[in-house]
Amino acid sequence: MKLYYGYDTFSKDVHLLLDQLKNNHYDAIIAISRGGLTLGHCLAEALNIRNVQSMRTELYDGMQKREKISVFGRCELRGCQKVLVVDDIADSGETLDVMMRHLQGQFTGITFESATLFYKKTSVYEPTFWVQEASQWIEFFWEVDFSLE
Amino acid sequence: MKLYYGYDTFSKDVHLLLDQLKNNHYDAIIAISRGGLTLGHCLAEALNIRNVQSMRTELYDGMQKREKISVFGRCELRGCQKVLVVDDIADSGETLDVMMRHLQGQFTGITFESATLFYKKTSVYEPTFWVQEASQWIEFFWEVDFSLE
Repeated sequence: MKLYYGYDTFSKDVHLLLDQLKNNHYDAIIAISRGGLTLGHCLAEALNIRNVQSMRTELYDGMQKREKISVFGRCELRGCQKVLVVDDIADSGETLDVMMRHLQGQFTGITFESATLFYKKTSVYEPTFWVQEASQWIEFFWEVDFSLE
Repeated sequence: MKLYYGYDTFSKDVHLLLDQLKNNHYDAIIAISRGGLTLGHCLAEALNIRNVQSMRTELYDGMQKREKISVFGRCELRGCQKVLVVDDIADSGETLDVMMRHLQGQFTGITFESATLFYKKTSVYEPTFWVQEASQWIEFFWEVDFSLE
């Protein structure tokens, strides 16, 4: 069963996420493309963070699961102490897990935290901040409201 | 006077923009941060473009206007032939003008086109595709719906 996740619900959830985030200071936001772009944008506006960058992963056919995900994009985080990584959902959690390890390995002096709207109990990675537990397939408004099909 | 630009109007305008865009093929989308992130996300989903990257500009105090804008971020566009640059509005047009020159200078073999929701007649740059002419200050939903003030 699919759950349609419209703008009004999103808006309420972003406010709930901001309640958790608002007392922290972040120097930059990294939005994971594509899923984290709209959320990253809205959080950046609310938290008054101008330094928003994006990175993405791609799945590859590898022999082992861990080899299947490649990270694309290179962030410029000079002078940053704390950075928030944003995605829509931690589903399998592989994307966020790989991304957080990648960033932490590359920028050893920076603290990375993560925020998502949804978290699935079976995810291999639990975001620092999340709003709803996902039990079914989510259809985000940005995925379906503009469909040309 | 300020015009509130809510999600419902945005949604209609994105469909109008897609009517103009849908017969073109783009290998990647570059969303200008922050303003172009949500629009870039929605266009990428509709056009089924997975390669979405972001760049941003910053204003500096320079002696001459043209020196005031610096571009941040470096795109990986290997193998791309045609790329769509996305922002919310061409207001003064300086950001898009500088960004398009920057990208075209850096990637001479790639065709860059641009898309925005709004275009102001006084803009120094006219996007390839735009939906509405802006005559007043626009308050985009991502700027005001999540405000913590």
